[in-house]
Amino acid sequence: MPSLWQDDGMTEGRARELTIADIARLAGVGVGTASRALRGLPNVAPATRQRVLEVAERHSYVVSPDASTLKKGSTGRVAVVAPHLSRWFFGEILEGIEAVLREADYDLLLYHVGGLEERHAFFERLPARRKVDAVMVVGFPVEEPERKRLELMLGVQIVAAGGQHEVYPHVCIDDVHAGRQAVGHLLALGHRRIAMLAATDPEQPVQPSGRTAAYAEALAEADIPYDPNLVVTTDWGGEQGAAAMAQLLARRELPTAVYAHSDEVAFGAMRTIRDAGLRIPEDISVVGIDDHPHSVLLHLTTVRQPVHEQGVLAAQLLLGLLRHEDVQRSITVDTQLIVRRTTAAPRT
Amino acid sequence: MPSLWQDDGMTEGRARELTIADIARLAGVGVGTASRALRGLPNVAPATRQRVLEVAERHSYVVSPDASTLKKGSTGRVAVVAPHLSRWFFGEILEGIEAVLREADYDLLLYHVGGLEERHAFFERLPARRKVDAVMVVGFPVEEPERKRLELMLGVQIVAAGGQHEVYPHVCIDDVHAGRQAVGHLLALGHRRIAMLAATDPEQPVQPSGRTAAYAEALAEADIPYDPNLVVTTDWGGEQGAAAMAQLLARRELPTAVYAHSDEVAFGAMRTIRDAGLRIPEDISVVGIDDHPHSVLLHLTTVRQPVHEQGVLAAQLLLGLLRHEDVQRSITVDTQLIVRRTTAAPRT
Repeated sequence: MPSLWQDDGMTEGRARELTIADIARLAGVGVGTASRALRGLPNVAPATRQRVLEVAERHSYVVSPDASTLKKGSTGRVAVVAPHLSRWFFGEILEGIEAVLREADYDLLLYHVGGLEERHAFFERLPARRKVDAVMVVGFPVEEPERKRLELMLGVQIVAAGGQHEVYPHVCIDDVHAGRQAVGHLLALGHRRIAMLAATDPEQPVQPSGRTAAYAEALAEADIPYDPNLVVTTDWGGEQGAAAMAQLLARRELPTAVYAHSDEVAFGAMRTIRDAGLRIPEDISVVGIDDHPHSVLLHLTTVRQPVHEQGVLAAQLLLGLLRHEDVQRSITVDTQLIVRRTTAAPRT
Repeated sequence: MPSLWQDDGMTEGRARELTIADIARLAGVGVGTASRALRGLPNVAPATRQRVLEVAERHSYVVSPDASTLKKGSTGRVAVVAPHLSRWFFGEILEGIEAVLREADYDLLLYHVGGLEERHAFFERLPARRKVDAVMVVGFPVEEPERKRLELMLGVQIVAAGGQHEVYPHVCIDDVHAGRQAVGHLLALGHRRIAMLAATDPEQPVQPSGRTAAYAEALAEADIPYDPNLVVTTDWGGEQGAAAMAQLLARRELPTAVYAHSDEVAFGAMRTIRDAGLRIPEDISVVGIDDHPHSVLLHLTTVRQPVHEQGVLAAQLLLGLLRHEDVQRSITVDTQLIVRRTTAAPRT
């Protein structure tokens, strides 16, 4: 009979079958102490808590939701945490998430958590309350210490909708591919002076952006040198896109095309271009990413991402995890180039 | 000492002090029966339940939240029910509501309830669960039978954000005034052939629209006859506005100006006008209502409503009611004409 002390003999599959008693033995503490340490309760020495958490993590031990609510069973609730509610992408994905959760009779607790500090405060407080079975994060990453705390201490499952993450389950688009579709379209039309309006959320920690990587890759493959004068970084949003485009226009040589990280950034850029007396697409082509409902009204060429569907798939993934089903932990949905009237070949 | 049987002697203020025992006596039933009837529990004959509810309603008796949860106290949760999540207005107002509720340590249960049938199903199921202390409805009316059931049976408070209602507390704009600001601006510029794109939600019961009334009033005051050829009714939304504008353009005489019930309807109208080779504002002026974040990007003249603020005020009103404070039950926030570049005097 293999002893639980033989760490090397454990596969990840078998490790998940460990009980709280096993974790206690491995950490050299009593079962009560191990349980308190894992559930974030007081009366555990910091060093002891640390040792228990390390053992739990090494063996991928997760407190079962039922055990952590102390026989009360699951809460029947899922927290959805989003950094914006009034922007289209977030509302649209929320509709998809809500539809699936309600169908499954789960309640949706909504948290609008804007900045980094607010987010830390949110994750600090959540464990004390154990109000939910799972947390769905929309469009932002959960940092490792927070993820471990939620998953190990509380058995709260984390799923990301609309964002790509190495460590926890997620549903997203392939940002590099989407960016390549947009920039590739401009290159195919014959553009070589292609500007980029790169969007980033100032409230979020800096993330490597697939949409930026796509631009660099596509230019390199086309043997076009990367020109920092053609790149402006801005916040997501129309007004920000308008201001970023004004910066571009103020530089010495104009681009013949603009690749915006989102349609709303593109809307702003379009206003600035037209207010400067330039025509779209005759003087400057513009392409975005999203297919926002207003894009068709502005005839914007864009790369469509299915946003509602990402919400639906993320919620289904989350439900599968709560039911301990064998689910696909990483789902990428397709994007599609939609050519409208804001792009054309450059003038020769 | 006035007897409780002397109905006439009761003012509304004193009536609110009635206890469940008073209601039982007035209805001629035992206290247990009255309580079961009011809380929607079984084992009450339909005629008896009806009598108890009638007595309770006549005396404005409301089950206290504490009593109805049977000593478990309040739930600490508020349900927010909205017919749309992905449209800007709803996301924006939701941000305001969420901020106030979270600050007060209430959790927000979100329900996306689209159509009329779905809404009936939602209100049918809510009482069986008593998951919340209050319901915030965003941008749609609660029908009387549903309101009575919630308030009388469950002591669940209803508040409306972004909508005007006679019977329950609400925060809204004055739709007639907002419409008068928009149409008045066109009249002041000298327009007399003013079209209206009237928006209405096909999923909602037909409501008298203040924005439509404003149009009729303003024209009548300016001695301009009402021409049904100048009015098209459509759904809220850009694509719908575009289609409605196409209907207008197909009629025999063009308007010199268009009053759209919302900015998104106006965005659609602007596309159709320009795609038809007409100029804005030289050929046709366009005005909307909202000040959507994209309106400034499209230079749209509009009537701004403070949407986030309506959410904040509605949530504060709701909290005041839950704390049994003496609150103002009807709050109207101001709107403001923002003149941009889509309106000008008609050509002579």
